[in-house]
Amino acid sequence: MIDEIQKQILEEVADLHKVPDGAYNIRANGESAGRNTTANIDIITKEDKSGIDIRIKPGTKNESVHIPVVLSKSGIKETVYNDFYIGEDADVTIVAGCGIHNCGNQDSQHDGIHRFYVGKNAKVRYVEKHYAQGDGLGKKILNPVTEVYQEAGSYVDMEMVQIKGVDSTVRTTKAELAEDATLIVHERLMTHGKQKATSVYTVELNGENSSTDIISRSVAKNESEQIFEAAIVGNTVCSGHAECDAIIMDKAHVVAVPKLDANNVDAALIHEAAIGKIAGDQLIKLMSLGLTEQEAEEQIISGFLK
Amino acid sequence: MIDEIQKQILEEVADLHKVPDGAYNIRANGESAGRNTTANIDIITKEDKSGIDIRIKPGTKNESVHIPVVLSKSGIKETVYNDFYIGEDADVTIVAGCGIHNCGNQDSQHDGIHRFYVGKNAKVRYVEKHYAQGDGLGKKILNPVTEVYQEAGSYVDMEMVQIKGVDSTVRTTKAELAEDATLIVHERLMTHGKQKATSVYTVELNGENSSTDIISRSVAKNESEQIFEAAIVGNTVCSGHAECDAIIMDKAHVVAVPKLDANNVDAALIHEAAIGKIAGDQLIKLMSLGLTEQEAEEQIISGFLK
Repeated sequence: MIDEIQKQILEEVADLHKVPDGAYNIRANGESAGRNTTANIDIITKEDKSGIDIRIKPGTKNESVHIPVVLSKSGIKETVYNDFYIGEDADVTIVAGCGIHNCGNQDSQHDGIHRFYVGKNAKVRYVEKHYAQGDGLGKKILNPVTEVYQEAGSYVDMEMVQIKGVDSTVRTTKAELAEDATLIVHERLMTHGKQKATSVYTVELNGENSSTDIISRSVAKNESEQIFEAAIVGNTVCSGHAECDAIIMDKAHVVAVPKLDANNVDAALIHEAAIGKIAGDQLIKLMSLGLTEQEAEEQIISGFLK
Repeated sequence: MIDEIQKQILEEVADLHKVPDGAYNIRANGESAGRNTTANIDIITKEDKSGIDIRIKPGTKNESVHIPVVLSKSGIKETVYNDFYIGEDADVTIVAGCGIHNCGNQDSQHDGIHRFYVGKNAKVRYVEKHYAQGDGLGKKILNPVTEVYQEAGSYVDMEMVQIKGVDSTVRTTKAELAEDATLIVHERLMTHGKQKATSVYTVELNGENSSTDIISRSVAKNESEQIFEAAIVGNTVCSGHAECDAIIMDKAHVVAVPKLDANNVDAALIHEAAIGKIAGDQLIKLMSLGLTEQEAEEQIISGFLK
């Protein structure tokens, strides 16, 4: 059921060169194109709407779930609801990329609504990669919504990456943390052409000693536009840090709007943001080693987004 | 025309122990209570609305203008428009405090709309202190609006201070900078009781090599609420930095929302914010020197706001 284009996209978004080990659900052009469950990880098709429930048993260790989505037909527009129930003490990796190949003239759009119910002391590594290609006039649109509900002592590490090719994206991430829970977010974003990308994070630190660290690195090329909003709300003894570093190039436009909201005397919240172009001396150094200006830029960007 | 209460308030908001040197306009309870002009600084009462025009001749050096406002009657509500025209190459200090003494049951409110037209290469030091006192049920309300239009090469250093006693304030500051212009803002704010304070800064860096540095330090005690918003818009080769440090105490609530808007590849914008309580080790150190906890807190706060 998977053709060559789809295979290539799967490599980009999920580093999948073959059928993955462990549990997976591959969605291609709005339909299931493969599924595997394990003794500990069940995947159930939702009956009331499009999407799946992923149920991970308490104590599941070192297992992974891949749920890549591929859109290779022009004109598909879908909203998919995926709910993850991660049992107590589980330690799992979830990979959820989406790739669009659109050579047609109609817009392709995938809006994935992901909800994570993370049990006590569970540990989740979540990787979400977005990628699009195709020379058609049709736009490639991705509007992911990610909701994270973390129980006591849980640890979630999210890597949110938009590699290239996505014309329009509004990324909305919302998290609520109970006591001793930790959420780490690493966002890496590159926009080019006339692309628009908006990222909105809201993290509520509700439980004692909860903490979050949100780190966004982005590069805006050509005439692209980026808006980054990150709100950390501290409602108790907690600590939060947000950092946004953006490289602006050409005629791009970057807006960073962090928000710290301290509702409690024991909330310690910090934010840093910096927007600027590639440092001239870095470029000159690399060019003195024989690189062209463009090669030097590419090398700096790739290091920055690594 | 100035009574004892008014004298005391003038000391708080304008460090005035006597009639100031240079130009001044003292406004008390909605009426002019004294005015002096100099050869270089003219003060003219507006004819179309409440307020004054302050005209400073080009090249005026080392002169000052004091325009303090005192409200000592309960129930006064006024909006005053003061426009400052600062000539090329002038180098002046402007002091514009407002103090409210309200022992009555009616609200007292002063909304000062200050506009600064700063000529080429002019240098302005602006000090604005807000203070209120009085045990009546009437609220003390101050809603200053400050607009700054800076021509090429001009330098403005603003010190915006709200000492204490102001029940409700919305401080709006907007600046537009031409080439080589610099705006420095130092805000110091303390709220206590059930006070609410909102500060909104918008600085547009429109001219090449314009720059701004906005530094806000605030302390929120008791059940007070503070909102700090600072937007820096970089439209050309320019640099902007905003920093917000807030100490939260008791049941206070502090929100910091900086915004960096880079519209040009040569705009370099940086922001930092931190909200937290007084560091425990600082308190312990001072207490080990014989201070009570409260004395230690007061000393730390006064150092922080200095």
